[in-house]
Amino acid sequence: MDTSGFVTSLVTSFIIFLVLYILHLVLSRFPGNDVVYYPSKLLKNIPPPAHRGPLTWISEAWSATEEQILHHAGLDATVYMIFLSSALWICLYTAFYCIPVLLPLSGTDDYYEAQAKKNATGLNVTDFDKVAMGNVTNRSPRLWAFALADYWLTIVILYVLWRSYKHVVQLRTQYQSSPKARPEQYAVLVRDIPQPPSGSISEEVDTFFRGIYPTSYESCVVVTDMSKSSKVWNEIETCRRKLAHSEAVYEISKKRPTHRTGKFGLYGPKVDSIDYYKEEMEKLEPMLKDEQRNANSKSQKGAAIVIFNSRVAATSASQAMHSEFANKWTTMAAPEPREVVWGNLPIPLVQRLARQFMVYVVVFLTIVFYMIPIAFISAIIALDNLEKKLTFLKPIVETPAVKAILQAYLPQLALIVFLALLPMLLLKLSTLEGIPAQSHIVRAAAGKYFYFNVFNVFLGVTLAGSLFNSLNAIIDDPKSIVSLLSKSLPLQATFFITFVALKFFVGYGLQLCRIVPLIIFHLKRKYLCKTDEEIRDAWAPGSFNYATCVPADMLILTITVCYSVIAPVVLAFAIVYFGLGWLLMRNQALNVMVPSWESGGRMWPHMHSRILAALFLSQLTMLGYFGVKEFVYVFLMIPPIIATLVFAYICRQLFYPSFSGSSMSAASKEAKEVPPTESVIEEYTPKCMVSSHGTKGTSDPEKHDENI
Amino acid sequence: MDTSGFVTSLVTSFIIFLVLYILHLVLSRFPGNDVVYYPSKLLKNIPPPAHRGPLTWISEAWSATEEQILHHAGLDATVYMIFLSSALWICLYTAFYCIPVLLPLSGTDDYYEAQAKKNATGLNVTDFDKVAMGNVTNRSPRLWAFALADYWLTIVILYVLWRSYKHVVQLRTQYQSSPKARPEQYAVLVRDIPQPPSGSISEEVDTFFRGIYPTSYESCVVVTDMSKSSKVWNEIETCRRKLAHSEAVYEISKKRPTHRTGKFGLYGPKVDSIDYYKEEMEKLEPMLKDEQRNANSKSQKGAAIVIFNSRVAATSASQAMHSEFANKWTTMAAPEPREVVWGNLPIPLVQRLARQFMVYVVVFLTIVFYMIPIAFISAIIALDNLEKKLTFLKPIVETPAVKAILQAYLPQLALIVFLALLPMLLLKLSTLEGIPAQSHIVRAAAGKYFYFNVFNVFLGVTLAGSLFNSLNAIIDDPKSIVSLLSKSLPLQATFFITFVALKFFVGYGLQLCRIVPLIIFHLKRKYLCKTDEEIRDAWAPGSFNYATCVPADMLILTITVCYSVIAPVVLAFAIVYFGLGWLLMRNQALNVMVPSWESGGRMWPHMHSRILAALFLSQLTMLGYFGVKEFVYVFLMIPPIIATLVFAYICRQLFYPSFSGSSMSAASKEAKEVPPTESVIEEYTPKCMVSSHGTKGTSDPEKHDENI
Repeated sequence: MDTSGFVTSLVTSFIIFLVLYILHLVLSRFPGNDVVYYPSKLLKNIPPPAHRGPLTWISEAWSATEEQILHHAGLDATVYMIFLSSALWICLYTAFYCIPVLLPLSGTDDYYEAQAKKNATGLNVTDFDKVAMGNVTNRSPRLWAFALADYWLTIVILYVLWRSYKHVVQLRTQYQSSPKARPEQYAVLVRDIPQPPSGSISEEVDTFFRGIYPTSYESCVVVTDMSKSSKVWNEIETCRRKLAHSEAVYEISKKRPTHRTGKFGLYGPKVDSIDYYKEEMEKLEPMLKDEQRNANSKSQKGAAIVIFNSRVAATSASQAMHSEFANKWTTMAAPEPREVVWGNLPIPLVQRLARQFMVYVVVFLTIVFYMIPIAFISAIIALDNLEKKLTFLKPIVETPAVKAILQAYLPQLALIVFLALLPMLLLKLSTLEGIPAQSHIVRAAAGKYFYFNVFNVFLGVTLAGSLFNSLNAIIDDPKSIVSLLSKSLPLQATFFITFVALKFFVGYGLQLCRIVPLIIFHLKRKYLCKTDEEIRDAWAPGSFNYATCVPADMLILTITVCYSVIAPVVLAFAIVYFGLGWLLMRNQALNVMVPSWESGGRMWPHMHSRILAALFLSQLTMLGYFGVKEFVYVFLMIPPIIATLVFAYICRQLFYPSFSGSSMSAASKEAKEVPPTESVIEEYTPKCMVSSHGTKGTSDPEKHDENI
Repeated sequence: MDTSGFVTSLVTSFIIFLVLYILHLVLSRFPGNDVVYYPSKLLKNIPPPAHRGPLTWISEAWSATEEQILHHAGLDATVYMIFLSSALWICLYTAFYCIPVLLPLSGTDDYYEAQAKKNATGLNVTDFDKVAMGNVTNRSPRLWAFALADYWLTIVILYVLWRSYKHVVQLRTQYQSSPKARPEQYAVLVRDIPQPPSGSISEEVDTFFRGIYPTSYESCVVVTDMSKSSKVWNEIETCRRKLAHSEAVYEISKKRPTHRTGKFGLYGPKVDSIDYYKEEMEKLEPMLKDEQRNANSKSQKGAAIVIFNSRVAATSASQAMHSEFANKWTTMAAPEPREVVWGNLPIPLVQRLARQFMVYVVVFLTIVFYMIPIAFISAIIALDNLEKKLTFLKPIVETPAVKAILQAYLPQLALIVFLALLPMLLLKLSTLEGIPAQSHIVRAAAGKYFYFNVFNVFLGVTLAGSLFNSLNAIIDDPKSIVSLLSKSLPLQATFFITFVALKFFVGYGLQLCRIVPLIIFHLKRKYLCKTDEEIRDAWAPGSFNYATCVPADMLILTITVCYSVIAPVVLAFAIVYFGLGWLLMRNQALNVMVPSWESGGRMWPHMHSRILAALFLSQLTMLGYFGVKEFVYVFLMIPPIIATLVFAYICRQLFYPSFSGSSMSAASKEAKEVPPTESVIEEYTPKCMVSSHGTKGTSDPEKHDENI
């Protein structure tokens, strides 16, 4: 890609962004669109801002304090903001040295020119390559400045991460020791309950825990096989919605609606809809009661939520080992009621381990075999290759306008579309591992996605066409990865800068103007929705999708960290990316997203270790690249690597434990009011097992928004 | 080494064993030696057997039940017996297939002869090499039987280990849930206590734990800087002993003993000993009181033993996380009072991690640099080399008798003497890590010793003279270790067989007849000891030295497991080794050793994982050796390796947690009587901090012998 292609890409991206920004400005002024642009505020009965200038949302996002974010969007969202701001600080601090020092140093050198002269070939590099480390002459004393940059980068990242980790731990402790007690603080998830020789599992659990905690044990909710009652419950729910819809239609048209009873209403006898659904519901409700009774008495499973009368008792029970064999009576802090994955709870430990192993194998295969299409994409990137092989394309491709656009967008678009296919598969795979909580599934999927990103997108694109040769070389001699990487990395800097630019201008633009949810909402409201419930479902904002946005940001950060010394220009784009992202996500957190669960910031250690992994990758690359540049003191690149490993170990030891549970000192803080056992039991009863149908039928997003 | 050297070695070893056996028979018949041969029984007031035939101890050791061992020697000794019997079972089961099937198969083949004929060189192998896998022709179908042996070995080891692990876990649970409560079950070790801004640490601990456990917290013993009071206490103790000695001398000789007050009684004014020591003690005792007061008020350190009023409370507190930062208020189950390493308790977490890291580096260097002397030993083993280089030795070495003895013993003796130097260094290093319990230090040292054994003795000797070349080759291409090992291993089988034979005949003979302790005891009694206390100290039996005997046994087991398929003859010797060892150690456990602490069988996971490591090493070697033998289905050697890894992972997950603490269900079993808080405090007060001197002055070995 030459400089003109790059500029075209940048300019087009920016124009798209401007269009979307203006769209947002215009559309968000209509009060009818408030449910799309301010749903979170509306649900909390906070009026959206009356005056909406072009910078209103920016000033609001900028001036919001952390307490406000915490209050409106919960701790998970706050931790995501801390991640974005940490990334931003890393880029800013690094740029503070790299841009003013390294850019002039490489810009005023002439390695590429000298090489071109020596080999008597044309100069085949972009302007961007000229301000990168590749343009510094081998063995030049200027390399010292780059070596210093490696140290600076390490210090900056370790410092920012240390500060952020401490801050997140403090926020988490605050959350856990809040006087406002939450039901999950009184509950412990018990799995792998052994089948008693006689009597029911609930009796067994009662006896076991009452024996150990005679004064603090309260009650238990045993997990049952809910497949049948859940099916009936869903049928009732469908009928209830259709009945409400029919009644609304009747009210508007004053004509009793009818439909056919066959599939999709296509065949079968025609019936009066209102009467039919009423009858159906009356028929189904006793069935549901039967199924619930059946499940409770006959199909109890080996897992339960055990409820205690104090936070201290529940916390200590969640951390203690209850049986001498670790595959019996395993306990852990109960997940929030909203995020419990009921189906996964009864899976026994050995099966969980086996499932985990199998999922890892599948993920490994996925990562390895997706390399093939990515390699094709890499080949396409080199448009010249395409022309050579498909000569009939030449007349079209040679048109200057077409060529510029193709060069600017085709490869990046292919990559982005391609990446959009994966998250669902990874979420599904993570669910199969037997993880008990939604938030944990999301973390597991995000972790897999990150590996995919690094191996396929970053390394795959970097090692480019020679991927298969490279693989062979690596298998033969694992050490060659460093030299291979350090040779290929500098050549792909421009590609990744374009990738980052496209990602932030178009991606953030879309997020800001919410054009897709807006259109869908208006279409639904016009043609489908009749009842209030249906309309509310149509604009339901949803929560942050951490499983995809965290790995996406991590990919950008990995690229930035790896290129920050080799091609410091990347830093400028990264600063815009994370700066814009930080503002936009704060806006989303304040005005749009409604969290569907709260894990108490447990995403942080995941983010922390991956940032460190990016740093480690960058340091390895530098080690190799200084070798390529024939820097004599290349061994000086080793101490930062050791520092990173020691830092990772210390953080793991010091901070990580507090993310797997609550500390006793936090749990022992006085709670304002202890939730009564009945209400905790009710929270942990799945919707389809509630005896009087409808009390928990609609989710109430306001219930948990004041957790902090 | 040729066959005659081997036979000489075996016969001499056996003769030494016989001599020692007869010595034991004769010496143990004198009732005056009972304190050497039956100290454990005497201390428990059990009369030693009246009739002592040549097989008395064998029949006693054979017929003793596990309960008896548990009762007399504690759980740690029982676990050591289980380790020996597991090793024995592994050898027996493996031999059951390998000896009758593999020996004839290789004995009737003629690979070595064919090779010798082909190259027209003399046959340069021992008779033992002829019954080993090396003598099987390449690509022969007979190799299938050897491949099967690899599977058989894997199945045997995994089965025996699974059975033993379950058994040990049950014993440990029994020990922990015993109605006879022990003080450490009510105590929790708290480290990393933050320095309070005002007030003493003991107040801080009181406030913190009373806040979290208002009903179950009882009291605490804060660790203090005891260096000064310990010094004074030791001076008083010396005076007391000397006073008693002088009084005893006076009683016998009726003449008041005198001595000079200078160093070693060599100079200074002459004084009456009895008066002098009495005065000294009177002078020192108020000093001790002062120092104790000082320590308790001014030099409290950041660690404490916290005492609870129930086992359940202490167990759950020991497993819970108390602060959100893992470097504050770290808790763990308190070690037995006897094994607490007071000086290590106040070391802060980060310093512990740093110390651990540094110790690992030192151990790594030790292992690497000890390779140099071992390489010299390997060179000596090849006596022919010696002759070639030191020609003046030739006339001496060529004498048949000298040559046979040299060949038989020199190398093994050098190795054994050499290995005797190491354990103390490793124990010292492990103490420096900041480990709080004696038993843990012993485990850590044993682990290091095992690595040393495997890397230096086993691999070092195996890779023999070519060690440095090998190292280079391995660094260049890590995969080459497998092929290197599999080429060198078969050639060293005879050496290791001699090593095992020497080890068990001479080592066990010495252990049985206890000639060294006997001589020392009689010398001391005759010339030094005057008081009863001094005599008792002279015959004090001590406990099993797990730090050296477990790695030594592990080395033999590693050798056996690695050679059991390649040279099945090794199995016969291993069976004698572990059979004799099992008998002898049971005898020691019943009659001789008195445990100085009890860790509740925590050595087992350590042994378990090292046996698995030996299996893994063996499987890797087989993988390479089948390659060398050009066996077409060599990939069939991979599934056992995977099985071993999966097994190790499952055992780690399933069984290991119960070794780091007690389970709640075990702790919740009713205790017969709860020890009063004062007595627990007293147990956890170091001798030099007890206010009235002398109450804990002499250790009382009977106090803990009925723990089970």
